[in-house]
Amino acid sequence: MTTKTITVVRDLLATNKQAAAAIREELRGRGILCVNLLSSPGSGKTTLLEALAERFRGRLRMAVIEGDIETERDAERIRAKGVPAWQITTGGACHLEARMIGKVLGDVPAAIDLLFIENVSNLVCPASYEPDERPRFVLLSTPEGDDKPAKYPQAFLSADALIVTKADLLPYVPFDPARAAAEALSIKPSLKVFTVSAVRGAGLDGLAGFLVESLERLRSGRA
Amino acid sequence: MTTKTITVVRDLLATNKQAAAAIREELRGRGILCVNLLSSPGSGKTTLLEALAERFRGRLRMAVIEGDIETERDAERIRAKGVPAWQITTGGACHLEARMIGKVLGDVPAAIDLLFIENVSNLVCPASYEPDERPRFVLLSTPEGDDKPAKYPQAFLSADALIVTKADLLPYVPFDPARAAAEALSIKPSLKVFTVSAVRGAGLDGLAGFLVESLERLRSGRA
Repeated sequence: MTTKTITVVRDLLATNKQAAAAIREELRGRGILCVNLLSSPGSGKTTLLEALAERFRGRLRMAVIEGDIETERDAERIRAKGVPAWQITTGGACHLEARMIGKVLGDVPAAIDLLFIENVSNLVCPASYEPDERPRFVLLSTPEGDDKPAKYPQAFLSADALIVTKADLLPYVPFDPARAAAEALSIKPSLKVFTVSAVRGAGLDGLAGFLVESLERLRSGRA
Repeated sequence: MTTKTITVVRDLLATNKQAAAAIREELRGRGILCVNLLSSPGSGKTTLLEALAERFRGRLRMAVIEGDIETERDAERIRAKGVPAWQITTGGACHLEARMIGKVLGDVPAAIDLLFIENVSNLVCPASYEPDERPRFVLLSTPEGDDKPAKYPQAFLSADALIVTKADLLPYVPFDPARAAAEALSIKPSLKVFTVSAVRGAGLDGLAGFLVESLERLRSGRA
């Protein structure tokens, strides 16, 4: 029983890994930087993307693939900003898989600079799955508490950057940004840390700069 | 491949269901009301339990089983309130399973009125799994947004009560309690709705009353 289960899971992961590799290859070939967003529900992934859409308007072309259990709500919010968006509803599945991404990839226009994948909101399951395009961002909103990195180590270990969101709520919640950053860095020392308030537009300069640099590195073949 | 996967998952679920049924039977026989808490990370499950521990001190005897990917942090917070607590760390698993609960159940003192199970923080996976002790509470914190019920329908459909937490943050976040309640009730019309601020002790009377009534019903054999 146990052996059979493990074999099945390993086979499924291998298939997903192959599909993910093909997607990575295709996007790289098209010169598109693919950014994965991972977080708990309600930590502000869509609001951050709305803010980045405003910031990059007329400068960089964005597209977004939204993963959710149900509803088109997030894709509709992104489209309202003039950015093409595809909603994948998983039904009940707790994470996006590469083949789900693969199905919509053909619809993504060729002339795109940044493709964001907003994974199903869940700090556990998506951390262990492909799509594994880079960079991967883990978002932690201030009301969630600064004790989360050690409780969900894989989410932070698998990320390239930590984005502390909802900085505007810092006066009202018990969240120490230095503690959160230190704990995340103890898990992954190379993690870049950005603290932002998407609704106020604060802290977005550093994050936007990081995205532009990553795109330039990809296109110059240095990534 | 697909058939094999489905069979394996069904077998695993069946085993878990049997273990869950045995646990339910045992707790009922001991006259213990078992309450399941389900929510996103950082929505305030542990803070709510701390507040209930204060409220029930000297009146009802509580115990808590904590589920987390890693760390003993939540159990330590509960123990600091003088309430016995057991921490189950799942390593990487996204939900508690009945057999994990079964392993610590023998350590739970006989003289307990309320046993809370704080599931791994995840709005997706735990909703589909036993332990299925009742009542089951789904928590939604105001910073997460009032659009979450339709996005995670199974979590709300499988619950008996919705607890809107962090009501003290309402002046600072775009959350309409009436909208959240209406959406949750459209998914599950029988859902009881409580709005609380655990840090301020607001709204706890109704919730405490509901727990006392549920315990009385269980012990009088009406549940």
